[in-house]
Amino acid sequence: MITVKEAKNIILNSTQNFGVEEIPFLKSVGRVLKEDIFADRDFPPFNRVSMDGIVIDFSSFKNGQRSFKIEGIQAAGSEQITLINLENCIEVMTGSVLPKNANTVIRYEDVRIENGIAKILIDEVCHFQNIHQKGKDKSEGDILIFKNTIISSAEIGVLATVGKEFVKVAKQPKVMIISTGDELVEVHQFPLEHQIRRSNVFTLVSLLERLQIYSETDHITDDKPVLKQKIETYLKEYDVLLFSGAVSKGKFDFLPEVFKELGVEKLFHQVAQRPGKPFWFGQTNMCKIFAFPGNPVSTFVNCLAYFYPWYFKSVGLEKQEETAILAEDVTFKPNLTYFLQVKLSYRFGHLIATPIIGNGSGDLTSLVNADAFIELPNDKNEFKSGEVFKIIIYR
Amino acid sequence: MITVKEAKNIILNSTQNFGVEEIPFLKSVGRVLKEDIFADRDFPPFNRVSMDGIVIDFSSFKNGQRSFKIEGIQAAGSEQITLINLENCIEVMTGSVLPKNANTVIRYEDVRIENGIAKILIDEVCHFQNIHQKGKDKSEGDILIFKNTIISSAEIGVLATVGKEFVKVAKQPKVMIISTGDELVEVHQFPLEHQIRRSNVFTLVSLLERLQIYSETDHITDDKPVLKQKIETYLKEYDVLLFSGAVSKGKFDFLPEVFKELGVEKLFHQVAQRPGKPFWFGQTNMCKIFAFPGNPVSTFVNCLAYFYPWYFKSVGLEKQEETAILAEDVTFKPNLTYFLQVKLSYRFGHLIATPIIGNGSGDLTSLVNADAFIELPNDKNEFKSGEVFKIIIYR
Repeated sequence: MITVKEAKNIILNSTQNFGVEEIPFLKSVGRVLKEDIFADRDFPPFNRVSMDGIVIDFSSFKNGQRSFKIEGIQAAGSEQITLINLENCIEVMTGSVLPKNANTVIRYEDVRIENGIAKILIDEVCHFQNIHQKGKDKSEGDILIFKNTIISSAEIGVLATVGKEFVKVAKQPKVMIISTGDELVEVHQFPLEHQIRRSNVFTLVSLLERLQIYSETDHITDDKPVLKQKIETYLKEYDVLLFSGAVSKGKFDFLPEVFKELGVEKLFHQVAQRPGKPFWFGQTNMCKIFAFPGNPVSTFVNCLAYFYPWYFKSVGLEKQEETAILAEDVTFKPNLTYFLQVKLSYRFGHLIATPIIGNGSGDLTSLVNADAFIELPNDKNEFKSGEVFKIIIYR
Repeated sequence: MITVKEAKNIILNSTQNFGVEEIPFLKSVGRVLKEDIFADRDFPPFNRVSMDGIVIDFSSFKNGQRSFKIEGIQAAGSEQITLINLENCIEVMTGSVLPKNANTVIRYEDVRIENGIAKILIDEVCHFQNIHQKGKDKSEGDILIFKNTIISSAEIGVLATVGKEFVKVAKQPKVMIISTGDELVEVHQFPLEHQIRRSNVFTLVSLLERLQIYSETDHITDDKPVLKQKIETYLKEYDVLLFSGAVSKGKFDFLPEVFKELGVEKLFHQVAQRPGKPFWFGQTNMCKIFAFPGNPVSTFVNCLAYFYPWYFKSVGLEKQEETAILAEDVTFKPNLTYFLQVKLSYRFGHLIATPIIGNGSGDLTSLVNADAFIELPNDKNEFKSGEVFKIIIYR
């Protein structure tokens, strides 16, 4: 049995490159950018008027002039016009090009307009005011978004602005999620007394959808030849297989044997943690196999604690570690890392984690009452209120 | 001009009910539950074996017996069998029903099996150990998930388990997002010097997709009759119109006039904030209109600061306020609420917000470098490192 730290290291040393694909920029939210995005022109691309008002040549104002005949209008989206008489003014709109020969914008609030004459009502006016100067934010050729950024709404605006209709992103792994266990029936079925409905696969499907991975699912009965035959096929067709169940010590926990017979390299089996101890991880040349124990909380926490970081590293994403402050004393005797469910709250800039005590790894319903797991290390047994630990947020 | 607080109050007093719809449970992530979810049976539904091993009758062990003949196997998914001879044992698998007449599970690790006889290797065995008792987590009829919960992967597992193939959720508003401004060209086009590409609508589309709202978009040129005609139609067809641009003081900022002529009730125009001051908000009987100023940072922050809370309250969701600790002193003189872009980091359970100074509301590229806005109130001008303020996280 290895420690959580060792398991994480093995997993992070087994990452995979799924390649790159080009997709429409508007479909790229949540995906990982695989090219630098450059400014295709200066930002702003012209001296851009940033207030509605009038524009003048500053030297007239400096010479004491306060009334200006309106010579024309410069609208946003119109070609640049020219201030012909430097003692006149032009009405300008936010977003418009600064007219030629003009250099100082006075907003409407500070002007009175009557009979085609604009009178400036203020005494403090600065040269170049209310003009967002060409290239002020970025110059043509500057990198606006770096490769390996995860794309959010903020990046979408920039991609649109520079005309990236299609954008290169990390390809997603092709994932098959497989449940095992003869006690399982489908969601629409009525279970007999000794049966329960399939649920872990759907939890995993939705945990992967959070990463924009759209997986497939299957259920295989606890029948070794069938398991072996199906898994042999799936190993060739998918980048990743996620299993739930059949990895512990039970008579029908065939997976470790089947993997061995199919020549899958075992990287570890069993991690010193609770819940989720019987986790099995291995690989072939082409495929990674995460075989999670079948208890719902075990499957859930292992997907977050192992598959997520593996995926992030595989696609080139660096994730900041998140921490929270334990709100209550916790005692945990076994020499295992304890992934404890917690409810999070923000208090005065502190992230507070309040333990939610469930009834063990089979207690699916307790996940609903929490937001995260706090990771209590195995090097001690007493965890005090106020101490800080890593957390894995799942909402 | 009203304050940010007043604007929020008006918006939160103008929420709307979009009704309820029933959708497949696996499509419900991110949606707001509109029914209580009950336990359809006890959880667990039977006395459930929680370790692979053997099961005995505790009284034999208590009487000093340590070797037990294996009478049979109880697999997960099999009907309950019976321990016929109380001095024998049955092999049991995790997830199986507890066999009749048996009551104490000893895991394989603590047993040696030879020639059909299981010998218990430990001296401490408790009555009922390693059994997850029927109804321990929840009883039939208990509420497992309350109405108005936002559905995450944790809820998906529970929905599957109780057989909720279809689930009642808040219907989403039908939203049209409209850009204005003659300076705008399409993403695939090459802008002339005085033009820029459309980007705000796409930012808004993706900000709404985060809420699982799939909106439509249009662009209307700065032509008052065209604007009026199109908006008249949209007011009848959509629950919400979001605009970007044409609400400030420019000659072609026709929206406020058009709204007035179409009989839209103005609830406010202009909020004492930076960026995003010229925000216009109004309503008809059937439709809410959020008309955001056209600068990219203004549109972005106003969508987060106003549309998001309005939507959350409309669908019945209570959101926890998030706060962070300012990492640097900030001075801001105007009597306005300042939505300042910040980069977030987690340090020892503290959420730290480091200001990212952009070049004003036109600086789209600065959004990429930040994660959130910190809301600095208008009642003072000096904000000190270490002080705590509300934040709006956008990643």
